[in-house]
Amino acid sequence: MEQHLYLSLAASFEKQIAGGLLKAGEKLPSIRKVSALYGVSKNTVIQAYLTLESRSLIISRPQSGFYVGSGVDFRLPVPDKSQPSALSAHQEADGLIGKVFQQLTNTRITQLSLSVPAPSFLPISKLNKCLSKAMLNLPSGGTGYGDIQGNMRLRSLISKRAFTWGGDLDSGDLVITAGVMNAISFALMALTKPGDSVAVESPVYYGMLQLAKHLGLRVIELPTHPLEGIDLQALETILPDLNALLLVTNFNNPLGSSMPEDRKKKLVEMITANQVPLIENDLYGEVYFGEKRPKPCKAFDQQGWVLWCGSFSKTLAPGYRVGWIAPGRYLRQVLRQKAFHSLSSTTLTQEAVAEFMENGGYDKHLVTLRKRLFSNREHFIQSIGAYFPEGTKVSRPQGGFVLWIECHRSINTAKLYEAAMAQGISIAPGRMFTLQDQFHHCMRLSFGLDWNERLEQKLQLLGKLVSEFTSPNEPS
Amino acid sequence: MEQHLYLSLAASFEKQIAGGLLKAGEKLPSIRKVSALYGVSKNTVIQAYLTLESRSLIISRPQSGFYVGSGVDFRLPVPDKSQPSALSAHQEADGLIGKVFQQLTNTRITQLSLSVPAPSFLPISKLNKCLSKAMLNLPSGGTGYGDIQGNMRLRSLISKRAFTWGGDLDSGDLVITAGVMNAISFALMALTKPGDSVAVESPVYYGMLQLAKHLGLRVIELPTHPLEGIDLQALETILPDLNALLLVTNFNNPLGSSMPEDRKKKLVEMITANQVPLIENDLYGEVYFGEKRPKPCKAFDQQGWVLWCGSFSKTLAPGYRVGWIAPGRYLRQVLRQKAFHSLSSTTLTQEAVAEFMENGGYDKHLVTLRKRLFSNREHFIQSIGAYFPEGTKVSRPQGGFVLWIECHRSINTAKLYEAAMAQGISIAPGRMFTLQDQFHHCMRLSFGLDWNERLEQKLQLLGKLVSEFTSPNEPS
Repeated sequence: MEQHLYLSLAASFEKQIAGGLLKAGEKLPSIRKVSALYGVSKNTVIQAYLTLESRSLIISRPQSGFYVGSGVDFRLPVPDKSQPSALSAHQEADGLIGKVFQQLTNTRITQLSLSVPAPSFLPISKLNKCLSKAMLNLPSGGTGYGDIQGNMRLRSLISKRAFTWGGDLDSGDLVITAGVMNAISFALMALTKPGDSVAVESPVYYGMLQLAKHLGLRVIELPTHPLEGIDLQALETILPDLNALLLVTNFNNPLGSSMPEDRKKKLVEMITANQVPLIENDLYGEVYFGEKRPKPCKAFDQQGWVLWCGSFSKTLAPGYRVGWIAPGRYLRQVLRQKAFHSLSSTTLTQEAVAEFMENGGYDKHLVTLRKRLFSNREHFIQSIGAYFPEGTKVSRPQGGFVLWIECHRSINTAKLYEAAMAQGISIAPGRMFTLQDQFHHCMRLSFGLDWNERLEQKLQLLGKLVSEFTSPNEPS
Repeated sequence: MEQHLYLSLAASFEKQIAGGLLKAGEKLPSIRKVSALYGVSKNTVIQAYLTLESRSLIISRPQSGFYVGSGVDFRLPVPDKSQPSALSAHQEADGLIGKVFQQLTNTRITQLSLSVPAPSFLPISKLNKCLSKAMLNLPSGGTGYGDIQGNMRLRSLISKRAFTWGGDLDSGDLVITAGVMNAISFALMALTKPGDSVAVESPVYYGMLQLAKHLGLRVIELPTHPLEGIDLQALETILPDLNALLLVTNFNNPLGSSMPEDRKKKLVEMITANQVPLIENDLYGEVYFGEKRPKPCKAFDQQGWVLWCGSFSKTLAPGYRVGWIAPGRYLRQVLRQKAFHSLSSTTLTQEAVAEFMENGGYDKHLVTLRKRLFSNREHFIQSIGAYFPEGTKVSRPQGGFVLWIECHRSINTAKLYEAAMAQGISIAPGRMFTLQDQFHHCMRLSFGLDWNERLEQKLQLLGKLVSEFTSPNEPS
């Protein structure tokens, strides 16, 4: 079994690190090299390295490789796999979410609670040019209705791009939406009716919980590992009773987990056998820190059970409201949802994104964005190591914008939120990301901000507050 | 009773026309003058004139007044009040709608089936300038998320404009949406659950039917008069059992009806007493041919039971996807719908519309638009009078984009559609606008196209087809 292989490979490297054969900061051999050397598959090596990283023994650097961890990393273990109740709950943290949301446009606050790239990370002047060009390109300056399914040029470009991860889509398989939540809304409305059950990761982006509850769905939160994603065994027992599965398989928000390829493959086999559709929210897929874009589950989907969703909100322009869905066998149903609820999408911003993808240097932009975000992730982890109390656990997302912090059990991050706001810092308390009575001692921090001395000071301040709020005598 | 007054007033004018005291083409005295002369209210005069117009004895000209009808008008009576079944039906004309929709982007077809203004009616270069300015005005070039409720400047401008019809709104009362269907979608989702009942006009825009059915609602079609709108008596009997009412009170699509003010007032009293919310789709309100903008029901709404919806899709730019809703007492619920299903709206197009409203000459544009549309309406009615067979009935919308044509009973407009398409003409068959077994001999024609000789020829061709399809021996 591959599973044993990767564990024994990880153990071998652990020995070399413990024995000083591999020193702090030293680069580990490439995946290809280890694969050849040990006679195992690349996937096995990747999983071994992820296992080591989950134990903070090694760290990854994008476009570079894996390195033996420094002291800081040893002080900051990755959070444990979540253990939500198997029963569906419905205690929405509405008040808390509302409170945090109200402050999101307050520019005097350091917004560690907002999962979007800072404006300085976006190619704004190029996008402006693309939008101006779109006004010229389109008939009637883009004032007319577009095709309900979405701008044909944009759909072609998205489907071509899907080939890079082994996707086999054409423009007719895609529907453009007003961002990814809108795609998920159409998907859920197409697939479910009130009283149906959907399963999600735990913790999970609160917007998914709100939407699902609001549609009258039972939400089952799955145990989720901060590196490897949902527990497939836990899923197996409930899968036959599910009406849909709703997952962020790459760089999950807020936990940062990414399912390894073999698990994705296994997952697709499971849902196909059970004929349970998977709504795959892949909005962070392009914001990876590793060597290449991780495949979504859609790459393994032969029979159309995966509804693959994405967006340009996290890479180009949140305010353009351009996302998409490739609904597989549910194309007709999703298209009807769009026709009934909103007709066509904004004509101009779709064309501007298409223009940017084709002529604006989308790939170059993404390389820069990933580098900046990874560098920020490292700054954040360093600062948390330096300023947060001993015992703090931090996720190690291989992409995306957010860190998941697990503090000492005695901390209540809803109370911490109030104290932090008094200091001009907004955090996202853990309880926002579940319908259950859990994650009170957790929080999500966004690192999609400009890194500077002031931000570091804010993190230092936050660390001090966390220390003050900790009662070490309570059992952790 | 006022009702008797207006009828006797109408009879008095009918006598003068029949007796030759008032001659074809002659201008009728102004509403104010008749009101003073006969000692009746202005509303009574308006209703008397509308009654005469419904019988084609007089015609209205925007910014001018009422005139004694010419021969053509006598040949073209207004359709009768619709008589849908009181039972809810659910025979969607999906196939038909799909077929018509598939051809909507076919530019080689004369699109008499599309209810939007021709590009030449839109202020495209000015809008382009406003959009360019929006990129400069907005932080981050408009790439960022906006306020979920919508652009504050735009909401202020819409609420200020509402004062012109006696609305008492402020920016906080409005929610921006991606067009009016999106507003209605949020409203219906906020107000109803599957199995609930909504009432609509009959005929009604098929998008409303599709959305309502799709949300699992029972749809009750109300008898509707082509001039005065829904039958309030018919409504009264079912009102206590309704969960919501969904109406286009001004220049209804497709029938062209507009409820007179006193009926609107009465309607608001009725829904308030029964605590049944009214979703008022006022998307054509600014496209009036008369002297002033007709009030929406919202003007009479003291207790927040009217959810007033509108859009810039019919006046400025369909492709910008900017509409709104003032949900009254349901503000919180509608706002949650928006937050869950789509987050914020497209940042740039909202600001561009605000810029146009404030500095782009919105009022001047509307004056031109109304004149062109009214002139088109007249061209269409003249042509239908000249080229369609005897007995054809035509609506007399006082605003908007569409005519409702009632042909001889023997005509099947679904079959006519095929024959017309073979000649490069698309019409909207009447069956699209109901869930019941009715309107097979009706069709909707859009007059929002550039008027020219070619278009007149197409109408001539269509009239010839209608004649060919008519079997006069069948009872009408």
